Amino acid sequence: MPDRVLRAIDAPTIDHRGPDFAALGHEVLAGMSEIFRTGGPVVIYPSSGTGAWEAALVNTLSPGDRVLAFETGHFATLWRAMAERLGLEVDWVEGDWRRGADPDRVAAVLRSDPSISAVMVVHNETSTGVTSRVAEIREAIDAAGSDALLLVDTISSLGSIDYRHDEWAVDVTVGCSQKGLMLPAGLGFNAVSENALAASERARLPRSYWDWGPTIEANRAGYWPYTSATNLLYGLREAIAMLREEGLENVFARHQRHAAATRAAVEAWGLEVLCADEREHSAALTAVMVENADEIRKLILERFDMSLGAGLGRLAGRVFRIGHLGDFNDLMLAGTLCGVEMGLRLTGVPVAGSGVEAALSLLEREPVAV
Amino acid sequence: MPDRVLRAIDAPTIDHRGPDFAALGHEVLAGMSEIFRTGGPVVIYPSSGTGAWEAALVNTLSPGDRVLAFETGHFATLWRAMAERLGLEVDWVEGDWRRGADPDRVAAVLRSDPSISAVMVVHNETSTGVTSRVAEIREAIDAAGSDALLLVDTISSLGSIDYRHDEWAVDVTVGCSQKGLMLPAGLGFNAVSENALAASERARLPRSYWDWGPTIEANRAGYWPYTSATNLLYGLREAIAMLREEGLENVFARHQRHAAATRAAVEAWGLEVLCADEREHSAALTAVMVENADEIRKLILERFDMSLGAGLGRLAGRVFRIGHLGDFNDLMLAGTLCGVEMGLRLTGVPVAGSGVEAALSLLEREPVAV
Amino acid sequence: MPDRVLRAIDAPTIDHRGPDFAALGHEVLAGMSEIFRTGGPVVIYPSSGTGAWEAALVNTLSPGDRVLAFETGHFATLWRAMAERLGLEVDWVEGDWRRGADPDRVAAVLRSDPSISAVMVVHNETSTGVTSRVAEIREAIDAAGSDALLLVDTISSLGSIDYRHDEWAVDVTVGCSQKGLMLPAGLGFNAVSENALAASERARLPRSYWDWGPTIEANRAGYWPYTSATNLLYGLREAIAMLREEGLENVFARHQRHAAATRAAVEAWGLEVLCADEREHSAALTAVMVENADEIRKLILERFDMSLGAGLGRLAGRVFRIGHLGDFNDLMLAGTLCGVEMGLRLTGVPVAGSGVEAALSLLEREPVAV
Amino acid sequence: MPDRVLRAIDAPTIDHRGPDFAALGHEVLAGMSEIFRTGGPVVIYPSSGTGAWEAALVNTLSPGDRVLAFETGHFATLWRAMAERLGLEVDWVEGDWRRGADPDRVAAVLRSDPSISAVMVVHNETSTGVTSRVAEIREAIDAAGSDALLLVDTISSLGSIDYRHDEWAVDVTVGCSQKGLMLPAGLGFNAVSENALAASERARLPRSYWDWGPTIEANRAGYWPYTSATNLLYGLREAIAMLREEGLENVFARHQRHAAATRAAVEAWGLEVLCADEREHSAALTAVMVENADEIRKLILERFDMSLGAGLGRLAGRVFRIGHLGDFNDLMLAGTLCGVEMGLRLTGVPVAGSGVEAALSLLEREPVAV
Repeated sequence: MPDRVLRAIDAPTIDHRGPDFAALGHEVLAGMSEIFRTGGPVVIYPSSGTGAWEAALVNTLSPGDRVLAFETGHFATLWRAMAERLGLEVDWVEGDWRRGADPDRVAAVLRSDPSISAVMVVHNETSTGVTSRVAEIREAIDAAGSDALLLVDTISSLGSIDYRHDEWAVDVTVGCSQKGLMLPAGLGFNAVSENALAASERARLPRSYWDWGPTIEANRAGYWPYTSATNLLYGLREAIAMLREEGLENVFARHQRHAAATRAAVEAWGLEVLCADEREHSAALTAVMVENADEIRKLILERFDMSLGAGLGRLAGRVFRIGHLGDFNDLMLAGTLCGVEMGLRLTGVPVAGSGVEAALSLLEREPVAV
Repeated sequence: MPDRVLRAIDAPTIDHRGPDFAALGHEVLAGMSEIFRTGGPVVIYPSSGTGAWEAALVNTLSPGDRVLAFETGHFATLWRAMAERLGLEVDWVEGDWRRGADPDRVAAVLRSDPSISAVMVVHNETSTGVTSRVAEIREAIDAAGSDALLLVDTISSLGSIDYRHDEWAVDVTVGCSQKGLMLPAGLGFNAVSENALAASERARLPRSYWDWGPTIEANRAGYWPYTSATNLLYGLREAIAMLREEGLENVFARHQRHAAATRAAVEAWGLEVLCADEREHSAALTAVMVENADEIRKLILERFDMSLGAGLGRLAGRVFRIGHLGDFNDLMLAGTLCGVEMGLRLTGVPVAGSGVEAALSLLEREPVAV
Repeated sequence: MPDRVLRAIDAPTIDHRGPDFAALGHEVLAGMSEIFRTGGPVVIYPSSGTGAWEAALVNTLSPGDRVLAFETGHFATLWRAMAERLGLEVDWVEGDWRRGADPDRVAAVLRSDPSISAVMVVHNETSTGVTSRVAEIREAIDAAGSDALLLVDTISSLGSIDYRHDEWAVDVTVGCSQKGLMLPAGLGFNAVSENALAASERARLPRSYWDWGPTIEANRAGYWPYTSATNLLYGLREAIAMLREEGLENVFARHQRHAAATRAAVEAWGLEVLCADEREHSAALTAVMVENADEIRKLILERFDMSLGAGLGRLAGRVFRIGHLGDFNDLMLAGTLCGVEMGLRLTGVPVAGSGVEAALSLLEREPVAV
Repeated sequence: MPDRVLRAIDAPTIDHRGPDFAALGHEVLAGMSEIFRTGGPVVIYPSSGTGAWEAALVNTLSPGDRVLAFETGHFATLWRAMAERLGLEVDWVEGDWRRGADPDRVAAVLRSDPSISAVMVVHNETSTGVTSRVAEIREAIDAAGSDALLLVDTISSLGSIDYRHDEWAVDVTVGCSQKGLMLPAGLGFNAVSENALAASERARLPRSYWDWGPTIEANRAGYWPYTSATNLLYGLREAIAMLREEGLENVFARHQRHAAATRAAVEAWGLEVLCADEREHSAALTAVMVENADEIRKLILERFDMSLGAGLGRLAGRVFRIGHLGDFNDLMLAGTLCGVEMGLRLTGVPVAGSGVEAALSLLEREPVAV
C-alpha cells in the first residue's frame, strides 16, 4: 500500500454534511467512473467487496431467479454460495480451476435455458491467476439472444487489468478498495448500466442499505444517504490521483509486463503456471504449481520476510501465488523473483535454469510503455 | 477525533488471514464486549451504522413481522423507513421530538397487541438531545408479558453515555464507530443476546453479508468471513485503549458534567433546552431552541470557526445543537460556550445573563469524577 | 503545533544533493526573507535558536570586542553569558525585568563609549512578555553617530509580532523554528545586513559550522554546504504556506487582539501585568503577577490539563505566563482564560470581576482584521 | 528510512522542560551509550554531523594545535579544511582514496613529531567504501608512546559497522542521525572519553553552543541547556528500539553479509571494487570502478527509479556507489543488484557473468546470523 495513500487516510474527518464533503464526493465519483470506464453511475458503499457482490444481486434480482455461474476458482465458489443464501437458483458450471468462464458454454446454456436472469463472472480469479474474457462473454450472451444481465466481479482486477464497463456492456461491475486501488479494505463499488437500473425497478429481493436509488439520488449533490467512510474516501481520492498520474494504459501495460517476466521466470525454472489458457493469464498475479508449495512459502517468509499467496480451497498446498499488482516496479519484481528462486533451491526443488535471468532479460528488452 | 486514533489508522495494512490479524481481532472483540457490557457476541461490520441497523433487523425478523417504534426524532424516523423497505410492519407511535420512547406506552401497546415481534428504540436521539430510558422500556416489555425483542440504537451514545446490554436485557444493540468511539465512520456493530441468536434461527428475511452466523463462527479464531476494514480496526483498538485508560465510568461522568454545565449556560442565557423531560437529558449533546438558529450557526462558523449542529427534519432552523462528546475537556467546553455566548449577542438574541459564568461556576464546584 | 506542520515533517527524506532538494531550498529561503522582511540573505542552520545566537556573534565580532546588552529578562541574561564565554566584553545595563531595552540609554552609552561594536537586543522577552522597541533603538544608535551593529533576537516574536529587518536596519536578526513558526525545534536563522556581511570579513572569532560565507554561497543553487535537517525544512515550507494564507498582517493583528483581550481579562480580575510600559506589551504572551503563581499553575495543569508558563530566573514563583501565539484562535483564547479564571478562584485569589466577560466583550467588539 | 521512525517524529512536541522530556532524554542517552559501546558521556546536539565534528575539535584543542589527518577520501578532506578554518595546524598524509588511514604511518609520524595533539580518522569513508582500522590505529598511537587524542568520525558507520568507543580507547567519536541510525539529518553526537574530558579543561578554542560541560551537566537530569530537536529525539528513540530488537551484532552481521554479496556480484561482472585492501572493505557501501559511471547512474535512475551514489571529488564520474546500509534486507539487495546488472548491460558494459547469480548463491549459502 503506497505511503501516499496511508497519509491521505489519516487526515481529520470532515463533516459528512458540509460543503467540503460534497467536493470530495463529486471528485471520487468522477474518478471511479473513469476507472470503470463508464458514463453511468458508480455506487460506493462503506463495505467490503463481499457487500458489493450482495448489492449487485439484491438490486437486480428477485427471489427464485435463476443465475448462471462458473466454477473458476475459490471466489466464484463463494459468490455462488451467497446467491443461494439470498434465495436465487444457481446454474453452476463445474471447472478445473485452471480456466476462466467459457464464452461458448455461456452461449450454449443461455440458448438451452432462456429463463436465466443473470450471468455471474469473476474477471480475475485471485485464487488461480486466471482472467476471464468478459468481452467474449458479452458477445456470447448477445449471440444467444438472451437478455440476461452480465454481473462481473473485478475485485482483484480493477486498476490493474484493462477493464471496460461500458464498451463490454457489463450490467453490474463489482469492485472494492483493497487490491489494484491500493487502499485498505472498507469500500465496495457497483458500476451500473441502464439495463441494470431498469432491472432494479422490478427486482424484489428486499433491500435498503444496498439500494442504489437513494445513493444515486444523494450522489447528485455529492453526498450519501448515510454516513460514508470519509477517511477511506480520502485514500480513494489519492489512489485515483496516482493512477491518473501514471495513466491507466501505463498501469495496465506495467502489470502485463511484470506478469510476462514472471511467467518467463517460471518457465526457466522448469515449473508450470496454473493458468492453462494463454489468453487468460492474469496480469495481477501468477499461480505456480509445485508439490511443496507450503514448504516454499514458509521458508521464504521466515528467511526473506516475503509473504507469497497460499493455495486456496482445492488448491491448498499445491500452488503458491506471486502477486505483481498495485504499487510495484521492476526492481521490486526482480527482488521478489530472486526470493522465489532462492526458496526453490533451498527447499530442494530441481530448478532447470535461472528464472531471474530470464525475467531480467525480458525487462531489459521491453521498455516500460508510455 | 483524537490524534492518537488517526495515527493508529494509517499503519500499513496487515494480511487479513495472518496471525497478527487474529490477535487484532480477538483484542477488538474483547474490547467491544466491555464497552457494550455484554458477555455475548459482538459482530463488527465494515459498514456505516445504518448497515448495523439493517443487520439487527434481517437477522431477527421475517417478512411481514410487526415492530413497535417511536417518533422520537429524525433518526427514529429513518429507522422506521428502513424497516418498511425491508418488508416489516411498523406500529408507529407519534411524538413531539422532545421526549424519548415512553415505557408506559410500550407496555400498553404490547398488552393490546401481542403479535408485535420487536420494539425499536433510539437510545440517544442525535437530532434532539433526548435519551430514552432503556432499562425502563425493558421493564415495560417484561411487565406486559411480551416476548418481543428489544432492539436499541446506540449510534450516538456508545462510549459516551452509560449503557448496559446484558443488565438491561437488550436483544440487539446497534452501534457504530464515528461518535463516542472517536473513530472515522466505516464500522458498524451488533451486540447480540441469546434470545436474538435464537430468533436468528427462525428469521426469514434473506441475509448473507449481514448474517451473524458465519462472522461469529470466524470470530472464534479472530478472523472474519470476508475482508475486514483492517485500518479502522487499528483505530478501534486505540479508541478502546483510550476509553480504558480514562475508565468508562469516568468517561460517562465527564459527559454528564459537561451536559449539566451546558444546560446551566442555556438557563442563564434565558433560553430553553429542547429536551422536555429532565430524566432524559442527553449527556452527549444539547439542543437549544431559538428563533434564529441558523443565523447564529452561520455567524459562529464564519467568525469563530466553530460548527454547531443544525436542526434536522421538522426542527430545521429552530434549534442549534451543542455537541459535548468524545475527546473533550472542560476548557474545550468553556471555549465552545464562549463562542455560543458571543454568537447569541452578536445576532441580537436578548441574553438574560452570562451562561459562561454559570457553566464555569458548575465546573469549578463539581470536581471531575475519578 | 498545527497538524499540517507535523504531517509535513514526516515525509520520506529526499536526497540533499538532488534537484528536488534545490527546489525546497529556494522555496524556504524565499519564504524566510519574506518573514524577516529582508531583501538580503537569510542563513538557516540545523541548530537550536541558541546556535543562531552564537552564529550572529562569531560571524561579526573578534575576541575582546565590546558589546552593549540590556538585562530585560532571562533570555537576555543567557545571551550575555554566551557572549562572555566566546571572549567578548559585555557592557551590561541592569534592569527590573518589566521593561524593554531603553533607546535613550542606548544613545547615552554609545555616545560615552564609541568603542562598542554591537548592541544586542531581545525583541520579545519570553520570560517577561515585554517587547523592546527595535526601531527606536536603531534611531538611537544612529543619533549617537555610532556604527555599532544591531543584533536582535526574535526567537519568540518571529511570525507573531510585526518585525522588519530591512526597514529597521537591523544587522543580524536571530530566529528559530519552534515558536511563531509553529515548528519543532531544530532550525536556527540569521537574517544578515550588508553591514553585517562586511563585518564578517573582518571578524576574527574562529568559525566554521556557523560561517555565513559557504552557506550563502551554496544557497545560491538551493543547497547547503553540509547536510540539512531536511524534514524540518518540509515543516518550514508548510509553516510559511500557512502564514502566507492568513497573511502576515492578519497574523500580527490576531496576536495583538488576543493580547489585548488577555490584558482586559487581567485588569478585570484586578491583577497586574508584569510589563510596566504600555508601549511594550508583548503580542505573543502575557505575564501576570500574583503571589501564588506556582500553586495556580499546578492546579490548572492537574485539573484542566493546561500548562501555563512558569516564572523564570528571578521571577520564579511570582508570575505565570499566558501564551497566545502560533496556531491559535478566539475560542482557544477564551477557553484558556476560562481555565485561568477558574484556577484563580479555586486557589483563593480574590478576583475583582469576570476576566472572561471582559475578554469576550473585546473579542466581540473588535472584528478580526482582514 | 523506516516508516516506524518517520511515524515517531511527527508526534506532537512535548515541553522541553517537563517531566516527560526527562524520561525521553534519559532513554536516548542510555541508548546512544549502548550504540557507541561506551560507559562515558554521549553529547547530543541539534546539528548536522559537521557540527559534531566542530564540537570534537573546539572541546579538546587550542589555537595552533597540531593534528594528524589522512587523505582517505572526500570527507577526510572536508574535515581537514574545517580544522584549518578553526586555526589548527593539520599534518596531512596524502592518499589515493582506495585505502584507510595507515596505522604504521600513524606510529611513524607520532614518533617523529611528539607535538601532535590529536589524530583525526574517518572510520568509514562514504566517498570510497573504505573502512579504517581504528583499533590498530589506537595500538599505533600507544606504541609510539604518544598521548595524542584519537578523534574518529563514524558518520556513515555508526549503527551499521562494528564500533567500540571504549574498547578501542577512542577519545571523541563523532556521529550523526542520518545514516545507520536511519533518521532524518538534524542530530550530531560526540562520545567522549575521560582523556577528552580532561583535555576540554585545557582547550582554549572559544566554545559555547558546542561546550560539553553544560550539556553533560543538564543531561544528568535528562534535559539540555537549550531547546533540543525534540521530534528528532522521538525518532532516535524509535531507531534505538529497532536496533535493539534486531540486536547490534545481527545488524553488523547483516551489513557484512550484504557487502560480501555485493562484492561477489562485482567480481562476477568482471569489475573492480574501489577499496584496494581487503581488510578495509566497508560493510555499509561498495564503490565500483567503471568508465561510464554517470551514464549508468542516469539510466538506472530514469529506467528503474533507483538512485546510486555518485563519485565525489576526485572520483567524479569514475565510480558509482551501492549503499547497503540501514533498514535493508536480502531481497532489497537482490533487487538493487538486478537493477545494476541491467544498467550495466543496457549501457554496453561488457559483463563477464551474472553478478546477481553470484550474490544469490552467497545469500543462500550464508544464513543470517542470529
